[in-house]
Amino acid sequence: MDITIGFSDDYTQLLSPELEKRLETIYNDMKSKTAFGSDYLGWLNWPSSISQELLEEIKTTANHIRSTSDVLIVIGIGGSYLGSKAVIEALSIPFEKNDSLEVIFAGHSVNGSYLKKLLKYIDGKEVTVNVISKSGTTTEPAIAFRFLRQYMENRYGSSAASRIIVTTDQEKGALRSLAIEQGYKRFVVPNDIGGRYSVFTAVGLLPIAAAGFNIIELIAGAKKAEEQFGHFDMHNNPAIQYAVLRKRLHDNGYIIEIMASFEERLKYLQEWWKQLFGESEGKNKKGIFPSSVQYSTDLHSLGQYIQDGQRNLFETFLMVKNIDEDLTILESNNNGDELNYLSGLSLHAFNKVCHEATANAHLDGGVPHITITIDQIDEMHIGHLLYFYMMACAYSAYLLEINPFDQPGVEAYKTNIFKMLKKPVY
Amino acid sequence: MDITIGFSDDYTQLLSPELEKRLETIYNDMKSKTAFGSDYLGWLNWPSSISQELLEEIKTTANHIRSTSDVLIVIGIGGSYLGSKAVIEALSIPFEKNDSLEVIFAGHSVNGSYLKKLLKYIDGKEVTVNVISKSGTTTEPAIAFRFLRQYMENRYGSSAASRIIVTTDQEKGALRSLAIEQGYKRFVVPNDIGGRYSVFTAVGLLPIAAAGFNIIELIAGAKKAEEQFGHFDMHNNPAIQYAVLRKRLHDNGYIIEIMASFEERLKYLQEWWKQLFGESEGKNKKGIFPSSVQYSTDLHSLGQYIQDGQRNLFETFLMVKNIDEDLTILESNNNGDELNYLSGLSLHAFNKVCHEATANAHLDGGVPHITITIDQIDEMHIGHLLYFYMMACAYSAYLLEINPFDQPGVEAYKTNIFKMLKKPVY
Repeated sequence: MDITIGFSDDYTQLLSPELEKRLETIYNDMKSKTAFGSDYLGWLNWPSSISQELLEEIKTTANHIRSTSDVLIVIGIGGSYLGSKAVIEALSIPFEKNDSLEVIFAGHSVNGSYLKKLLKYIDGKEVTVNVISKSGTTTEPAIAFRFLRQYMENRYGSSAASRIIVTTDQEKGALRSLAIEQGYKRFVVPNDIGGRYSVFTAVGLLPIAAAGFNIIELIAGAKKAEEQFGHFDMHNNPAIQYAVLRKRLHDNGYIIEIMASFEERLKYLQEWWKQLFGESEGKNKKGIFPSSVQYSTDLHSLGQYIQDGQRNLFETFLMVKNIDEDLTILESNNNGDELNYLSGLSLHAFNKVCHEATANAHLDGGVPHITITIDQIDEMHIGHLLYFYMMACAYSAYLLEINPFDQPGVEAYKTNIFKMLKKPVY
Repeated sequence: MDITIGFSDDYTQLLSPELEKRLETIYNDMKSKTAFGSDYLGWLNWPSSISQELLEEIKTTANHIRSTSDVLIVIGIGGSYLGSKAVIEALSIPFEKNDSLEVIFAGHSVNGSYLKKLLKYIDGKEVTVNVISKSGTTTEPAIAFRFLRQYMENRYGSSAASRIIVTTDQEKGALRSLAIEQGYKRFVVPNDIGGRYSVFTAVGLLPIAAAGFNIIELIAGAKKAEEQFGHFDMHNNPAIQYAVLRKRLHDNGYIIEIMASFEERLKYLQEWWKQLFGESEGKNKKGIFPSSVQYSTDLHSLGQYIQDGQRNLFETFLMVKNIDEDLTILESNNNGDELNYLSGLSLHAFNKVCHEATANAHLDGGVPHITITIDQIDEMHIGHLLYFYMMACAYSAYLLEINPFDQPGVEAYKTNIFKMLKKPVY
């Protein structure tokens, strides 16, 4: 299992003994937990240290949900939402409910129409709710949970509690207290792992397992990544290379990164990536603005801007080497659509050509590009890729001298809301 | 029916006699069709000049599709896709197939797995195909159509032709020739309306009508907008005001615009907007980079970057005054979630508070904001809004001295593909 990285320019020319030293320092500071934000470095060795017991408990719970429910409603926002959403979407097959259990997300936005229709939709279906909030006090999921809890209690009476699972802090928070009082099953968000790094904890694993995917393989991929990318060799570590490339591009005025994929099912993985990098780096007036496009469709939308707009952006392609299912363009007798020149070409091969054609066209227009390639899309490779991004992100932020693990700016809007709505403590 | 616009700073201070003169010139040049790209100004008076006959023909065709089909597959990319997708998503109700006919899009990307599963999904369902391509030669939709045409011919034999509808150029292109040869029903993309301005032509109207929405109301809204925004008064025309604000922000170094909405169903309207502005303005190394977020969810993702990352972005909220369906937060006896301070508040009211709280927090962090408010989401108001954006976009591009109606950069990747795949003409 491998991740390869390509760059439109000569990577080696970016290297220097000073950079090597800086990377070594970052590595050592992370290892010795003396870097900024070290209290949140729990993700670093999580794949290799997650207990078999916890994995079994998650699997057992997921199987129980699958055998007793038609729908699992996952309530969460930000890091309590995007990780499992990204993995489930990446692994799901289009037009197929590939499973008897449907996973529906709520609480990531506040929307009366959505919630109302959701409540109507689940009527007559057996339901389990998994509410995920590290602090247990984030308003948006708490609002959704107030409605869902009421619904569950009205519908299931005293057995509602057995259909509600809480994933929250080990020691504190309103959600934890409520869970204890009501006797809900609880999973823990580790203290030392922040929301956007939490996909390999119960936060991500329970919904992913309930959706029918293999979390053992997902963790195995992450563990492999932990081994492969857990060193600071700037010549041979793609996570480090990605971080170095981003830093150099940033320093040269490329302040927007566009992550491009030809696989629509990686759309939420792109959203997860935007949170990971945007929230980790976007501090102290620094950071690269993360944006995403889906190709080919966005070649006919943002493509014009990328080709010829302001020259302050670079493009990072996420490519997949092998695809399970494909179609091949066949010869047509009358060639009325003038496509016979493509006969014999598979659609995946077309996309590979399109990648090269696009990268070169945009480069000619002044847009440098990086290409990250994974072998295939399955649990193992997705676990591997997500950990790769986490590692790259930590180095990226540290190279900018930013703490990758806090998010002070997210509090600002919350504080304003609490004041405006006169929350008792404020 | 009204659109209001707000700005975090004093709008009037941006005004000057020179600006007024410039706007008047743009207006006159558009009116007299002497501006850059005047060959593509057909959208300007389209809502007031679309023939009753064409509207009737589209409605009749849509009704025929609805009475003979379970699924309409719409094949298109870019402007042949995003307009109808945006309107259909905006008007659809979550968790409800609000209609007996399902509209599925294809050809906006090249994906073997998607197409294969789509072909499997439609087996046993009655199908109509609407293939939309102005040039008739864009590769991605042409590939999808080759597969679907084969499927339709295998399945329906000689009556396949009666289930295929082509929307293309009046006079030229492979798709037009094929349609004539095969006897497909044809609709025309007017010569003087480009893809991203084409939602009010058959390109957008047929799929929207087939999905069960009222295109007469949609056009009525657009017509109202044509009247309201068809003058150059910089004091009283929100379309002009939006263009002026964008220009001034751009000139002051705000080079990323983030369109924020609290309504998830406006997500594809945001995508349509990104194409409209990105493809119209992103030329000659100029233009504002268009990006979008959905709130609240992205407050826990890109929110940190917006609050505290590089200070080169501004935020444009798209707000909706009244919502059809809503829920109100009720008092809870035990208040275990500590949310009783929100009792009596509707979710839509929460979002309005969240809008104000967020806009102020981001402004404190150095992010200017614009707020565009529409009254409600229905056919009439969406038609009104889409035309508003088209008008604002034309002025925006002209203020940057850019032709809003061409897309020379989109050809670059195509040319590379054709060379690499040895297309006969290349």
